[in-house]
Amino acid sequence: MTNPTRVPTGRTPKGVVKREAILDAALGVFGEVGLHGASLREIASRVGVSHQSLMHYFPTKNELLMAVLRRRDERLRRHFDDEGGMSIGELISLAEDNVGMPGVIELYNMASAEATNSEHPAHAYYAEFYESIIASNSRYLKRAADRGALREGWTPETAARAILGMMDGLQLQWLYDRDDVRVAETLKMLVRSIISVPIDELDAS
Amino acid sequence: MTNPTRVPTGRTPKGVVKREAILDAALGVFGEVGLHGASLREIASRVGVSHQSLMHYFPTKNELLMAVLRRRDERLRRHFDDEGGMSIGELISLAEDNVGMPGVIELYNMASAEATNSEHPAHAYYAEFYESIIASNSRYLKRAADRGALREGWTPETAARAILGMMDGLQLQWLYDRDDVRVAETLKMLVRSIISVPIDELDAS
Repeated sequence: MTNPTRVPTGRTPKGVVKREAILDAALGVFGEVGLHGASLREIASRVGVSHQSLMHYFPTKNELLMAVLRRRDERLRRHFDDEGGMSIGELISLAEDNVGMPGVIELYNMASAEATNSEHPAHAYYAEFYESIIASNSRYLKRAADRGALREGWTPETAARAILGMMDGLQLQWLYDRDDVRVAETLKMLVRSIISVPIDELDAS
Repeated sequence: MTNPTRVPTGRTPKGVVKREAILDAALGVFGEVGLHGASLREIASRVGVSHQSLMHYFPTKNELLMAVLRRRDERLRRHFDDEGGMSIGELISLAEDNVGMPGVIELYNMASAEATNSEHPAHAYYAEFYESIIASNSRYLKRAADRGALREGWTPETAARAILGMMDGLQLQWLYDRDDVRVAETLKMLVRSIISVPIDELDAS
């Protein structure tokens, strides 16, 4: 930094607080109405900043969405193993955490549904997200397969896709009926039905 | 009809064709950008009708979305049993049909994700849709439970939610990776892993 009076946006303590407030509001708006339905003016108004001030932090709606997703990634990191993968046990633990954050599930559902369109700014992000989770879950499931503990007919990859798929679909159902849907418990039932060794044992091996 | 010159919109042969064309275009737009991102002008422009002409058929965007969903319901009907319910076999057969209609899956994903918000015009529609599919699937699964054919730990309702959840999540994955995701085959594996009688036998009993 050659000129200390020109501190990058969001690096001063006040700037950091404002940036976080913008990301919180944006998470809510993107989760409710999606990228295409969201307006920067609406987000600015929720935070109590001017439209111009918001654009100083995030010049475009696309950049704001990607910043919201990347902040979420930082929070996901504690579920990762040393190689940046995720075990089945950690995926279920993530489902347990998510119940405390309906806004995060709303955002995830909306953004992943919108981003199936290859022109959506988060398309590559979600395509890579699915590929990476499925690849690392498959590695854990391969250990079960190698020990003959994967139920007949399942492959590690099909099982990985099935577990993640059920998690996504149950989280959506949960937003409609929070009393009757138990995401993590149902995922544990699924794992027990297709793998004949305990999940913890698989993760630790 | 007291005045034969005033035929209701969409009842003349030309009107029916135009109405269908509007619904087709609307399905595509709602599937891409959602209700909140969709514009009636964009839909009118895709059909090649004026904005005013479109509003003559569907005065509001909400009404147009609900008309798209209701038309889809008519096509779903062949999967229903006499009581308006759906068996597990028919749910899987629906998943097989859907592979030929990615636009329908896109619309379903987008609209069901947006409509978790209780103020969305399709909120009641999707809440009832899930409730009804789960209730009728549960009835079929109860037959398996009554015969001791449901794997230990599963209840008919949990199994019904799990099957529908996996279908929804896998359909989303399929939109990202059409080569590697096999929705119907994976659902059949799930059913085989939690029920010890063939699906057909269950549906027919």
